[in-house]
Amino acid sequence: MTELARKALLPAGLQDVLPGTAAREAEIREKLMASLAHAGYDRVKTPLVEFEESLLEGAAPELSTQTFRLMDPESRRMMGVRSDMTPQVGRIAATRLVDAPRPLRLSYSGDVLRIKGSHLRPERQFAQVGAELIGVSSAAADTEIVLLALEALESIGLPDVSVDLNLPTLPVRLFDAFGVSRDDREVLTEALERRDVAALRAADGKVTGVLVALLEAAGPAQSALPKLKKLELPLGASEELYRLIDVAERVLASGLDAALTIDPVEMAGFRYQTGVSFTLFARNVRGEIGRGGRYRAGGASGEAATGMSLYMDSILRGLPDAEPVDRVYLPLGTPQREARKLRAEGHYTVAALEGAAEAKTEAAARIEAQGMGCNHIYIGGQVVPLNA
Amino acid sequence: MTELARKALLPAGLQDVLPGTAAREAEIREKLMASLAHAGYDRVKTPLVEFEESLLEGAAPELSTQTFRLMDPESRRMMGVRSDMTPQVGRIAATRLVDAPRPLRLSYSGDVLRIKGSHLRPERQFAQVGAELIGVSSAAADTEIVLLALEALESIGLPDVSVDLNLPTLPVRLFDAFGVSRDDREVLTEALERRDVAALRAADGKVTGVLVALLEAAGPAQSALPKLKKLELPLGASEELYRLIDVAERVLASGLDAALTIDPVEMAGFRYQTGVSFTLFARNVRGEIGRGGRYRAGGASGEAATGMSLYMDSILRGLPDAEPVDRVYLPLGTPQREARKLRAEGHYTVAALEGAAEAKTEAAARIEAQGMGCNHIYIGGQVVPLNA
Repeated sequence: MTELARKALLPAGLQDVLPGTAAREAEIREKLMASLAHAGYDRVKTPLVEFEESLLEGAAPELSTQTFRLMDPESRRMMGVRSDMTPQVGRIAATRLVDAPRPLRLSYSGDVLRIKGSHLRPERQFAQVGAELIGVSSAAADTEIVLLALEALESIGLPDVSVDLNLPTLPVRLFDAFGVSRDDREVLTEALERRDVAALRAADGKVTGVLVALLEAAGPAQSALPKLKKLELPLGASEELYRLIDVAERVLASGLDAALTIDPVEMAGFRYQTGVSFTLFARNVRGEIGRGGRYRAGGASGEAATGMSLYMDSILRGLPDAEPVDRVYLPLGTPQREARKLRAEGHYTVAALEGAAEAKTEAAARIEAQGMGCNHIYIGGQVVPLNA
Repeated sequence: MTELARKALLPAGLQDVLPGTAAREAEIREKLMASLAHAGYDRVKTPLVEFEESLLEGAAPELSTQTFRLMDPESRRMMGVRSDMTPQVGRIAATRLVDAPRPLRLSYSGDVLRIKGSHLRPERQFAQVGAELIGVSSAAADTEIVLLALEALESIGLPDVSVDLNLPTLPVRLFDAFGVSRDDREVLTEALERRDVAALRAADGKVTGVLVALLEAAGPAQSALPKLKKLELPLGASEELYRLIDVAERVLASGLDAALTIDPVEMAGFRYQTGVSFTLFARNVRGEIGRGGRYRAGGASGEAATGMSLYMDSILRGLPDAEPVDRVYLPLGTPQREARKLRAEGHYTVAALEGAAEAKTEAAARIEAQGMGCNHIYIGGQVVPLNA
């Protein structure tokens, strides 16, 4: 490894974001946040680290194994670096905003850090934009969050977005209802994750017929809904499935331009969801661009809530690069007042600098301008194209 | 401590940023970043953590004691959480952007984490906005960074900004030139930090006369400059002082509306500066709102560079709160298409939600709207003031 390569080396899954991309990320993030704000979601900002105890309270066990720990020398207590912001927003709702009227609509953006990347998401630091709708358990709330995500993605012009509606709690409900043993649950869950109909059929018990039917019903909402409506499920599971159908029909009725699929037994990646959930995709973007669903804010005994997170890196991959801005080269001797006036008018300027650019003639300044990435130059009190 | 207080407790110096403030911070941050972008400073984003070795390479020893460490289970090497972003930007300039044309102008924003807060700055996490001008060692470059900071602060309307120009390396230059012993340096440095003229005079040696003269010259640029110009300093020190005078005169000539003071022997808080430096203040804001100065990007053998950081928390304290936005309450039954249209037109909406708001009459909806912080309501296809 050369000295340069050694200095440039970052830990796996961490990266420097370079000119162009960093500005684009910030622009898209703020557009998404603006869309959430216009729908009444108030921005909050959570700390990068907090006490392990509060950070992980009520969180899924997986979150704990994904969280870096730090010792706080002030309090001599363990802190964790945030690996997800939803539990932090839930904590804010349950403490500082406990007296704010419900429904409480909150939004956030920020970077999270994880101990290990996944196969599909090798990044260990990534930027999220998210929203939480806290205090309401209705299908209308489930629907609002799905539509909120779609409207935000529409505001940035991300093409060909699709939503996959899921019900990650349904298999467990069915196992409970049919009295499936612990060993059988493991076998069936694995088969569901592999979408292995043959393995499901090979397993014993009444539940397998229902699971196969749910798996086979999965697909575009228009074809899945009639199949799901015909299924007869035990009490509990049946209510949950009807909630899913209700939300799907509400999303379809909203007239938003996104493909809707339903996959009721998809469980992968849902860590704390307790009801209707969803995964967002965009054509030509590998993996998901966001996900969301119903949960309890602040852990199992917390308030009813639903929310969603969007993944900035995936979203940026689905968007065209930003159009490069026009840059105006300011030759040596350009008065500061004129430079400021140009910027105030909206120009992007690149000033020649004594000690760096020593271009004395206009021809030399034009060459220097090109080298500095400018396509305009300020000459004789005018902004003129470089190639004019 | 109640259960609520226990859950809300954050480590000292860390905080939740609540609705209103969080949006305001983001708005001001992006305005500052836009001002830097318009002056040709390209945004980069640095990772939250990186290998300790590269994070602290060439950095001041104080930075090391302020940096939280984490073990990376992937590489089994130590990582540090960023406590300052300038060295990271220097690393990017020296590696990934080593072939980009100079001067290299980079900007960044982000949160840093420190092990211990200071008396004046008890926060341990704080948001910075900054810029680095890399590859040029001239007085013009020193001046550009000062003016860049002032123009950015002007763009957000921060009132009564002042700049204190400093030369934190000057005392050491003088100690070297006058052959001051190690013990005497300590005594003199302490006296300078306390601005204790009597203690300086009491100390022995030729250097004390110069130090007292420098201390007594400190003040508004208009009165300080003539005094400083009269001083005769040994070679090396004299050149540095003339650089300071040169930069001060350039800043004055720029016509920017900020008070300029000069304090050539102020050393406190400059950790890696190697030349002309500055501190930014705003009337009515306790402590500094930013600082900057000349340094070597990537450590002692690195490129000539100068840069500055602005502290978001201090800046926000100097600004009036954001004007609250108009919020339009959307009663139950408002079609999604109409809601989206209102938001696309720029309205901030708060939708009634089945399962939460069950207001059936217009009178009830108006009461509900008020409770949700709205000052408008959408009725009969019109946005009308609530109190009409």
